[in-house]
Amino acid sequence: MNQRIILASGSAIRRDILDGAGLDYEVIVRPVDEAAIKASMLAENSRLRDIADALAEAKAMRVSRQEPGLVIGADQIMVMDNHLFDKPKNMNEARERLLSMRGKSHALIGAVVICENGAPVWRHMCKTKLWVRDFSDEFLDWYIKTEGEALTKSVGAYRFEGPGSQLFEKVEGGFFAILGLDLLPVLEYLRTRGVART
Amino acid sequence: MNQRIILASGSAIRRDILDGAGLDYEVIVRPVDEAAIKASMLAENSRLRDIADALAEAKAMRVSRQEPGLVIGADQIMVMDNHLFDKPKNMNEARERLLSMRGKSHALIGAVVICENGAPVWRHMCKTKLWVRDFSDEFLDWYIKTEGEALTKSVGAYRFEGPGSQLFEKVEGGFFAILGLDLLPVLEYLRTRGVART
Repeated sequence: MNQRIILASGSAIRRDILDGAGLDYEVIVRPVDEAAIKASMLAENSRLRDIADALAEAKAMRVSRQEPGLVIGADQIMVMDNHLFDKPKNMNEARERLLSMRGKSHALIGAVVICENGAPVWRHMCKTKLWVRDFSDEFLDWYIKTEGEALTKSVGAYRFEGPGSQLFEKVEGGFFAILGLDLLPVLEYLRTRGVART
Repeated sequence: MNQRIILASGSAIRRDILDGAGLDYEVIVRPVDEAAIKASMLAENSRLRDIADALAEAKAMRVSRQEPGLVIGADQIMVMDNHLFDKPKNMNEARERLLSMRGKSHALIGAVVICENGAPVWRHMCKTKLWVRDFSDEFLDWYIKTEGEALTKSVGAYRFEGPGSQLFEKVEGGFFAILGLDLLPVLEYLRTRGVART
């Protein structure tokens, strides 16, 4: 295993996932204009899942053009009523988002793209469907107070592994997909490339 | 919310799950002769899933006979080739177990029983199916060395949230069910009883 694995994501939960698995990797994040990519793809009527894929690719490509090794880019978008939602920008937006999600289902679409020498070599998508229960206003107040600024760090304003679990009545999706990096297919690819233990 | 929630399980991951959700609860564990329950039920040709249910009930009942409040008992059994497997007793058994799982699927059956005033008031079961990949002997050595005694703490000799993820090629099951306590239905029941926020 003499090739590097690089995670091109600053997400704490993605690092937790790779750390948990016991992988050796580095984190290198370079800025990508995600808003511009989204805006141009939405203007072109791209499929929403293609936007997640393009964002994951952009993050990996940005690093892979300068760094040797296998560079993992990942993105997760939230889709509700056929619209794409970004991370809430502040606590007010987080509250509005949660209110708009109440009593409805939404999807998280996750994309992973691995690049090498400035070109994509592997890509993967996964989808999670989540049903938010018809929670009370009192619950929402408690939830927002409990989570605080963490709400603005995830696309759906929840950490499923935290108090966010109390938002849901049902969830369909893979364990790691829900968290934001669908680990098992990534490991499978890394094994074929000889950079994860077989 | 003036009624107590008691978790009748010493499992660290079950505590992590309830802590993550932000529930207020206590842990009270009283000894239960799990081996005797299993042996008598196996002698009676009970269904394996009924054994998980009986173990969860026994743990909750043991506490609920003495403590007021809602007492949560939980159990998870491993089934492979229609046989029930216990936690490996030592590192040698853990290695044998992992070798027997290699390249095959197995199931984790999880049961939760909630008791109140010495009687069961709610019960739930869930099933997770896991496919273990055909890993190398070198991988097994690394895995056993990395996990150490933790291997003997879980029924399948793996922590899915840890390096155990590298054992699997595919997993079908709910997020919390895999970890050992199917949280969402439990929360739903606790809400109906007024002991979790609605």
